[in-house]
Amino acid sequence: MATTTERPNEYNVVGTRPVRHDGVDKVTGRARYGADIHPTGLLHGKTLRSPHAHARIKSIDVSKALQLPGVKAVVTSKDLPEAPNEPVSLGEGPMVNLRLLSANILAQDKALYKGHAIASVAADSPHIAEEALSLIDVEYEVLPPVLTAPEAMKDDAPILIETQTTMSLGKDTGKVSNVATHTRFAGGDVDKGFAESDLVIEREFTTPTVHQGYIEPQSVTALWNADGDITIWTSTQGHFGIRQNSAAVLGVPISQVRVIPLEIGGGFGGKTTFYFEPPAALLSRMTGRPVKMTMTRTEVLEATGPGSGSYTWVKMGVKKDGTIQAAQAYLAFEAGAYPGSPVNAGAMCMLNMYSIENILIDAYDVVVNKPKVAAYRAPGAPQATFAVECVVDEICEQLGIDVMDFHVMNASKEGDRQATGVPFSKIGNVEMLEAAKESDHWNTPLEGKYTGRGIASGFWFNAGMQSSVNIAVNPDGTVELVEGSVDIGGTRAAIAMQAAEVLGLPAEDVHPVVVDTNSVGYTAVTGGSRTAFATGWASYEAANDVVRQMKERVARLWETTEDEIDFSDSAFTRKDNPEQSITFRELSARLMETGGPLVGKSTVSPRGVGAAFGLHIVDVEVDPETGKVDVLRYTALQDVGKAIHPSYVEGQIQGGAVQGIGWAINEEYFYNDAGQMANSSLLDYRMPIALDLPMIDTILVEVANPGHPYGARGVGEVPIVPPLAAIANAVSHAIGVRMYDLPMNPGRILEALWGKDNGGA
Amino acid sequence: MATTTERPNEYNVVGTRPVRHDGVDKVTGRARYGADIHPTGLLHGKTLRSPHAHARIKSIDVSKALQLPGVKAVVTSKDLPEAPNEPVSLGEGPMVNLRLLSANILAQDKALYKGHAIASVAADSPHIAEEALSLIDVEYEVLPPVLTAPEAMKDDAPILIETQTTMSLGKDTGKVSNVATHTRFAGGDVDKGFAESDLVIEREFTTPTVHQGYIEPQSVTALWNADGDITIWTSTQGHFGIRQNSAAVLGVPISQVRVIPLEIGGGFGGKTTFYFEPPAALLSRMTGRPVKMTMTRTEVLEATGPGSGSYTWVKMGVKKDGTIQAAQAYLAFEAGAYPGSPVNAGAMCMLNMYSIENILIDAYDVVVNKPKVAAYRAPGAPQATFAVECVVDEICEQLGIDVMDFHVMNASKEGDRQATGVPFSKIGNVEMLEAAKESDHWNTPLEGKYTGRGIASGFWFNAGMQSSVNIAVNPDGTVELVEGSVDIGGTRAAIAMQAAEVLGLPAEDVHPVVVDTNSVGYTAVTGGSRTAFATGWASYEAANDVVRQMKERVARLWETTEDEIDFSDSAFTRKDNPEQSITFRELSARLMETGGPLVGKSTVSPRGVGAAFGLHIVDVEVDPETGKVDVLRYTALQDVGKAIHPSYVEGQIQGGAVQGIGWAINEEYFYNDAGQMANSSLLDYRMPIALDLPMIDTILVEVANPGHPYGARGVGEVPIVPPLAAIANAVSHAIGVRMYDLPMNPGRILEALWGKDNGGA
Repeated sequence: MATTTERPNEYNVVGTRPVRHDGVDKVTGRARYGADIHPTGLLHGKTLRSPHAHARIKSIDVSKALQLPGVKAVVTSKDLPEAPNEPVSLGEGPMVNLRLLSANILAQDKALYKGHAIASVAADSPHIAEEALSLIDVEYEVLPPVLTAPEAMKDDAPILIETQTTMSLGKDTGKVSNVATHTRFAGGDVDKGFAESDLVIEREFTTPTVHQGYIEPQSVTALWNADGDITIWTSTQGHFGIRQNSAAVLGVPISQVRVIPLEIGGGFGGKTTFYFEPPAALLSRMTGRPVKMTMTRTEVLEATGPGSGSYTWVKMGVKKDGTIQAAQAYLAFEAGAYPGSPVNAGAMCMLNMYSIENILIDAYDVVVNKPKVAAYRAPGAPQATFAVECVVDEICEQLGIDVMDFHVMNASKEGDRQATGVPFSKIGNVEMLEAAKESDHWNTPLEGKYTGRGIASGFWFNAGMQSSVNIAVNPDGTVELVEGSVDIGGTRAAIAMQAAEVLGLPAEDVHPVVVDTNSVGYTAVTGGSRTAFATGWASYEAANDVVRQMKERVARLWETTEDEIDFSDSAFTRKDNPEQSITFRELSARLMETGGPLVGKSTVSPRGVGAAFGLHIVDVEVDPETGKVDVLRYTALQDVGKAIHPSYVEGQIQGGAVQGIGWAINEEYFYNDAGQMANSSLLDYRMPIALDLPMIDTILVEVANPGHPYGARGVGEVPIVPPLAAIANAVSHAIGVRMYDLPMNPGRILEALWGKDNGGA
Repeated sequence: MATTTERPNEYNVVGTRPVRHDGVDKVTGRARYGADIHPTGLLHGKTLRSPHAHARIKSIDVSKALQLPGVKAVVTSKDLPEAPNEPVSLGEGPMVNLRLLSANILAQDKALYKGHAIASVAADSPHIAEEALSLIDVEYEVLPPVLTAPEAMKDDAPILIETQTTMSLGKDTGKVSNVATHTRFAGGDVDKGFAESDLVIEREFTTPTVHQGYIEPQSVTALWNADGDITIWTSTQGHFGIRQNSAAVLGVPISQVRVIPLEIGGGFGGKTTFYFEPPAALLSRMTGRPVKMTMTRTEVLEATGPGSGSYTWVKMGVKKDGTIQAAQAYLAFEAGAYPGSPVNAGAMCMLNMYSIENILIDAYDVVVNKPKVAAYRAPGAPQATFAVECVVDEICEQLGIDVMDFHVMNASKEGDRQATGVPFSKIGNVEMLEAAKESDHWNTPLEGKYTGRGIASGFWFNAGMQSSVNIAVNPDGTVELVEGSVDIGGTRAAIAMQAAEVLGLPAEDVHPVVVDTNSVGYTAVTGGSRTAFATGWASYEAANDVVRQMKERVARLWETTEDEIDFSDSAFTRKDNPEQSITFRELSARLMETGGPLVGKSTVSPRGVGAAFGLHIVDVEVDPETGKVDVLRYTALQDVGKAIHPSYVEGQIQGGAVQGIGWAINEEYFYNDAGQMANSSLLDYRMPIALDLPMIDTILVEVANPGHPYGARGVGEVPIVPPLAAIANAVSHAIGVRMYDLPMNPGRILEALWGKDNGGA
């Protein structure tokens, strides 16, 4: 059982735990996922991928493949329109380089990672399509690969993108390089800060490429109709983004593309991107038939966007009493084959748990011969925070300060400056830390040899972006809620509950439905911990629009004006005569006679995003014979603002912690010297299973976000930020050796123990 | 080619002929109809039907059927909840008697027509289900049937519904009878009118039961989910009505039912009703699996709702100059097995072409042992108008007055009283008649023996009801339009065009999508000629809501206020500086920076419904040897207010005329003495085919309806009102014998000719 601080709830629906609306469909198998789409006349697509991590493509000959009976079409990058090699705006979302976006979908002149898509075949069956792949002749000139950011930054490193020059501090250096951008976050004077410090520690850290590990491989079906309209069924976190990017890469107007999102079997940031949509659409255009492409697990690992591998150097200076004087960091994050690592987000988050006057962070986005990274839950923050929180632990150890006291003493508060220079609005960092200090876990001593306790905190800024909701009132007093947010982790429920609260209805009487790009206003991706916050806000606004219109109806019935009418407890009453009353349900049955059907709507782009903090406490035991790390006990605290549906908030925190445990202890893309991933199956890429895990206890702290009607903050991402450092600190205390590199798998633990026995580290 | 009066068009989009949005899907076979639904685990349902026209059901034993391997469940009326035997309100639409509604779905104590559903079986295949039907033992007590209204009104007639007492002029007579209601429409003093007339003619007319003849048989798939939610995929003209009635008959809240409308293969009023939805849902609940039920053509003819068979007596008095002094009518319309014939609508329409001071109409709704009738295009008006327009033709013949002059002389005008007592608002009756008088057809003499020309006019009041539309703006300056109106006859296009006109966009840039009951506000049935009018109006209002919100964005960009901004030619300009301008498309790309996504919405319940008039001119030739009637030339005129998409208006008029030709010449339900339909296939029920028809020329007259933003009137129903009388008049002129009974098939024509030769008639 998750432990949740008992607290009074000022709401009727928000803060309760109704059964999710999509629950039965999901447990009975009725819910439709990407792979469940089978239109008439379906063809199946398969993709030929580069066996080389880095190679020039000299020629592609598909003629033999086309002759295989049952093969209907083959597509290569030549079938995609040429796109400009410069950042352009697509109307929604950030600027993108269409040429590079397109080149990751189907390789152009070079293959930049093992698994890079070269060609796709559509055939009557997936087996024929697969057989045809072996009949495609590709002539490669194999080039030396480069696999880590520090190596790729060397002057003599092989260059991946020969047109790429470094943008440094906003200016084009003109230097061809694997470094795409260099960004700096600075405040105060770090030299002065370090000079005034009693203790200065600097350390280097690395983290490997890891995968989000969603259960459901990507599956796309596309139909390019004879009138030019393209319908795409896909598993995605954001169908509006898929619409935009697919249209851009295919060179058609956005309005020609309709994207129908299916239920999603996990995403964690990895399904904010697109892979098969353009080739499936092109194959459909060539054949006049719908084309389905579903990934294998190997393709998911080798050719979708994993989390960024990283190198981070951190230097911190403190007074003897533990107050931080200065912090400096250098981050070089792997973008994979095309620019776009989350290094800046990591830089922006890594120090925000603390109030530090003097900071300097240099962040480098570096391309390497690995798949282009995608978002992975609080992208960039876990890697960067791992470094900071390990250094903090070492500082406390050296100074003999209680690490929890250190956190409280240096904690950032409302008004303090973030790394970006923007001051914090109301945050619950201190309240969350105090709850941690008082927690049962922190106050229960840990016993035993080779055991260790570690803590770490973490920050994520959370996102707002845009959401649209429509609400229609049924004659039986229930409502239909139309939204554009793909449901991850129970967001249908959390969003419906916010409308239910406004309308005074039980959550079950609000029926949420997630619709396609044609059927609701623009709604940004389900990501950035924004959905329950922002689409929930849209739901709140649409419900208020319903109430406003229903007041007009009541005013008509009672021959008065709207401002004479109150609404509370799901009933409209007359201000000057509280005896006169009509319930929401009663009025719903009378809409036709008072002006017809009633629909409320809203579109929101909320500004009052509430930043969030978490602190995790973990106890581990290390087996000195095998190097295996067992997690004994785990408690995750988080300021959630207001838990709309506490069960799903707890679920997010537990899930984040578990992914962090995997990242810390076992997960990594293991590459051979040729730059080929050697463990691309879930047998060899070792994710945590239930047997590896204790119960993840959660403590929800609720410091209301004034920027949201119910005080909600995003909750989904923060919980993956602390675990890497918390576990590394616990392991260090268990074995008496500091750990700077992930994963802390048995081999690395044993090496650390052997080094210690030999007097090392 | 249809002939359309050339006229200037004051609009950019409205009045033009763009390609329909759903055209390619329909011609390529991609559009999904009811029968295209195949969810996983599908069971197939078949229905046992009464072989008797009238019988008491003494027992039903389904035990043997349930033992057949592959049979999963059987449902009878005992599985439906008991419902009150009195009119109740369901929130949307008129009062209904739930018990009778339910009894037509699955027969209770009595079978009231051959084909009445007794039980339905769900099995692994339709063949097993069909086999199981023969294993159901039903014990019947066969009762004598009654098949026409005059017979059913006799005192000694067999009584169908033993609890039914006649409601006469609003009062319950307490008399058990097959007459459900007697309604009267009266004005002035008919006795005085007839006394002052120079010529009084009275005649009797009958029309047979006919079917709408839609191509696509009903097909329903239902899934009753484990959480109680019911999803229904169906071919319907109005999914909100199906939701309401299915929920009511199943005894579940309306909000538990989601109805997904598929494309519709014709309806003409016949798909405003429901048949398989409740049994399919029950069978799904019993089995936990989706259940599909598709009708055969025989079931469509014998067990859906045909058009009402009718008896009409008309008496008219005129002065020598042709001015009408009085008109009286007695109508007895067949309701089929349960009350609800369109007799009142017929009564309300039949005289409205004329300005008549003294009228008296008595209308009787009578149950008979035939399937319960459904709406059929201008329900009731064709049958009643047939009588009036034949009498008018005979009066003109006797007085030697030109029938066209008679129409013009007596034509109803704005301010005249309708049969209901309500005065006409602006109507185009006179303009339409004058166009007819000037038409090429009317001014071209008809030559040849056994040829004849007939004309008749017709009226339909049209409907408004409720519609909801949402419009979302895409970043490329196109928009998505979400509507709840099933598309019949091109309404997607006509509705999209009205938004396009407001937004200054081409019709192609508005993408209409028809969505299910969960995804848009309440929208009434596609029927009553209301869709292009009312949902089009909702589209206009939603587009104006978009413009209003976009003005706010422009005001923000230009740091001014909305009222300082004009919108025309798809561009926003500053009133005080016309040089400052931004197009709709340009602004669409900047929505994210000016406040986020933008959605317009509207719900309307329009009052300004525009009544409509048509006049048809037809030339026929009769073969005196065989009695076959050939239609030589046909011209249909109509005041359409404003033709939104003229091609689809012409199509509606042509279709109505063709259905009227079939009704006049060949179509009828042919019953044997046992009350069993003897021609229940499309081989024996003779509908017109292309070889039977000349081109139907159309002349659109546009007298703008001031009650609609673009002046539109409903157009789909009027064109079936004139043909019955126009053809009867033409045939009468061709053979020299008046025809009072439909259809005028070869047998009846020969009988008329033989009677004439024998000195009869």
